[in-house]
Amino acid sequence: MNFDFIVIGAGISGVVIAERISTQLNKKVLIIEKRNHIGGNCYDYDEENGILIQEYGPHIFHTNYKEVWDYTSQFTDWVYYQHKVLGFIDGNFVPIPFNLNTLYGLMPLKLAERLETKLIDNFGYNKEIPILELKKVEDKDLKFLADFIYEKIFLNYSEKQWGLKPEEIDASVTARVPMVISRDDRYFRDKYQGIPKEGYTKLFEKMIQNKNIEIQLETDFKDIRDKLKYKKIFYTGPIDEYFDYKFGKLDYRYVNIDFQTWGIENYQPVAVVNYPNDYEYTRITEFKKFNMNESKQTTIGVEYPGNSGFMAWPVLNERNRKIFQKYWQEAEKLKKENIYFVGRLAEYKYYDMDDTVKKALEVFEEII
Amino acid sequence: MNFDFIVIGAGISGVVIAERISTQLNKKVLIIEKRNHIGGNCYDYDEENGILIQEYGPHIFHTNYKEVWDYTSQFTDWVYYQHKVLGFIDGNFVPIPFNLNTLYGLMPLKLAERLETKLIDNFGYNKEIPILELKKVEDKDLKFLADFIYEKIFLNYSEKQWGLKPEEIDASVTARVPMVISRDDRYFRDKYQGIPKEGYTKLFEKMIQNKNIEIQLETDFKDIRDKLKYKKIFYTGPIDEYFDYKFGKLDYRYVNIDFQTWGIENYQPVAVVNYPNDYEYTRITEFKKFNMNESKQTTIGVEYPGNSGFMAWPVLNERNRKIFQKYWQEAEKLKKENIYFVGRLAEYKYYDMDDTVKKALEVFEEII
Repeated sequence: MNFDFIVIGAGISGVVIAERISTQLNKKVLIIEKRNHIGGNCYDYDEENGILIQEYGPHIFHTNYKEVWDYTSQFTDWVYYQHKVLGFIDGNFVPIPFNLNTLYGLMPLKLAERLETKLIDNFGYNKEIPILELKKVEDKDLKFLADFIYEKIFLNYSEKQWGLKPEEIDASVTARVPMVISRDDRYFRDKYQGIPKEGYTKLFEKMIQNKNIEIQLETDFKDIRDKLKYKKIFYTGPIDEYFDYKFGKLDYRYVNIDFQTWGIENYQPVAVVNYPNDYEYTRITEFKKFNMNESKQTTIGVEYPGNSGFMAWPVLNERNRKIFQKYWQEAEKLKKENIYFVGRLAEYKYYDMDDTVKKALEVFEEII
Repeated sequence: MNFDFIVIGAGISGVVIAERISTQLNKKVLIIEKRNHIGGNCYDYDEENGILIQEYGPHIFHTNYKEVWDYTSQFTDWVYYQHKVLGFIDGNFVPIPFNLNTLYGLMPLKLAERLETKLIDNFGYNKEIPILELKKVEDKDLKFLADFIYEKIFLNYSEKQWGLKPEEIDASVTARVPMVISRDDRYFRDKYQGIPKEGYTKLFEKMIQNKNIEIQLETDFKDIRDKLKYKKIFYTGPIDEYFDYKFGKLDYRYVNIDFQTWGIENYQPVAVVNYPNDYEYTRITEFKKFNMNESKQTTIGVEYPGNSGFMAWPVLNERNRKIFQKYWQEAEKLKKENIYFVGRLAEYKYYDMDDTVKKALEVFEEII
């Protein structure tokens, strides 16, 4: 088998790089993918009831990078979906991240008014405050609020999500969700947000429809690598797996999703409801709400993070960073053999989808 | 070809003048129109699903001129539609122009109450304040509000709409939308407002049904002008085009509209939603809401101003005003050859529909 380029993995990184090579360089690319489908964890499929199911949990495309939005928009129309998450807190559905509407939803009116005034006086209006920073305030009222948010929104959710105490994970991960001093109920505040109108899988199919691209599903790269002739390899799989775990295994958090179909039109008020404190699951996703689907029934996914299921997130902490650094040094050496490591798994990073697209486009520009 | 009167262009100005000539003077008129339809940018058509689509974006008839309302009402019944626009601001749909309800929709309660009191004390109740004037206040709270409105409603929208900084366009244009100190959520406060019951195209068809009127579509006036004999010409096309751009091209802002049909009954809460800050489009129009249509599906138009598409608005600024003045001097000289320039394109003015009707009626009275 003789290809100019080999791409290992058909997730976002692999598909973007293959698309660029096939259209910008007009060269032949082989994509090798272990799973029986493309799209990585963004993969979705049309259920019999017409609802697009995201097999690996909710994926909302959001970005402030105009170039990423423009690039992606070449391959799909959008549902201009704006993501809103409710948290089930003390028996109420309230906006997440915690904002001023959440405050009024959970606190008595007079207390909420006092806290709101103090928040604005201390931090200003329309500001985002990391919860761990809010914890440092000295004012008695604000201290009460900080403790309340920490306990009801942050602590138990982090433990369910990661199976670790907050202090055992980098703040960069746990602090992804701040407190927001505004009445903006959206989960993201990026300029561009949406869900591909026909789903992610169709979007990726369109990206690799160029005749220069060949794809082999259900194939382990290691099984065929001896037979391959190539000029360059882009490896987007787990970096520790590439090196046969010789420095140890990098930790990932896994997820099991329990899919349930109900004979009702609406299961919950919004697409995603978080359960920080109740039950063992972290969230329930109702998929039809992403695509304005008017089916008479609805399918939900109840999400259980744990040590089994599919590989969902890197566990970013001191231990794993040290192990990763050893692998990355090895990976850097392979550049001279024209093997390049790129993407969430190969770089062991908590990339959002837009970061992944951006990085893949940059790597293409840089290397080619 | 021998006509008493020639009218170039079948938009509002051309159609009104032709109607007057045919019925009041009982004289023959030829209308020459480049496009394949009448009505100019007001043109609408009945989609298969029974929804009237306004091909060139939302047109709401509104006026304080009784004579304009009475004149127009001869040719159509009305949907007494009162235009309300929502802006998508910080994740909330709030009334545009910014009014006291917008204030309560975006601000925390206590802050909103304080700002409301100060606004009324400073400017009075039921007053309209241009946003650029509000920016001049010195009170700290009002300054915060002025900056907030400027940033969230005005600045980014102006830049999307015009592709220019606010200071590069006349304030008469950017200041069309003021802040309103009242609870009136309407976009316009004119006495008469509505949408022609059968649409604008039917209205214009009725205006030109007199047997004295002949119309040639898809015809460029310049191609046939040598063959024409006439007493008077009314030219309603672009003034720079008439003079072969000899003093340079006048700038226009163009618009592309992406029409999408969705299998749902309602796409958004009102007919027009503005997006000042998110995405690249400025607004989305849901057409069925203009005509009280009960279709099971809905068609929207997503509007992208730019340098391509159809000619939508004159870019009123110093440069263009100077160029226009040169053309207008030439146009004035042509009066003695019985050629008259009238309308939005010929006068390079940001006329609303009612201004255009009024001006055309005045020009008819004056010249005939």
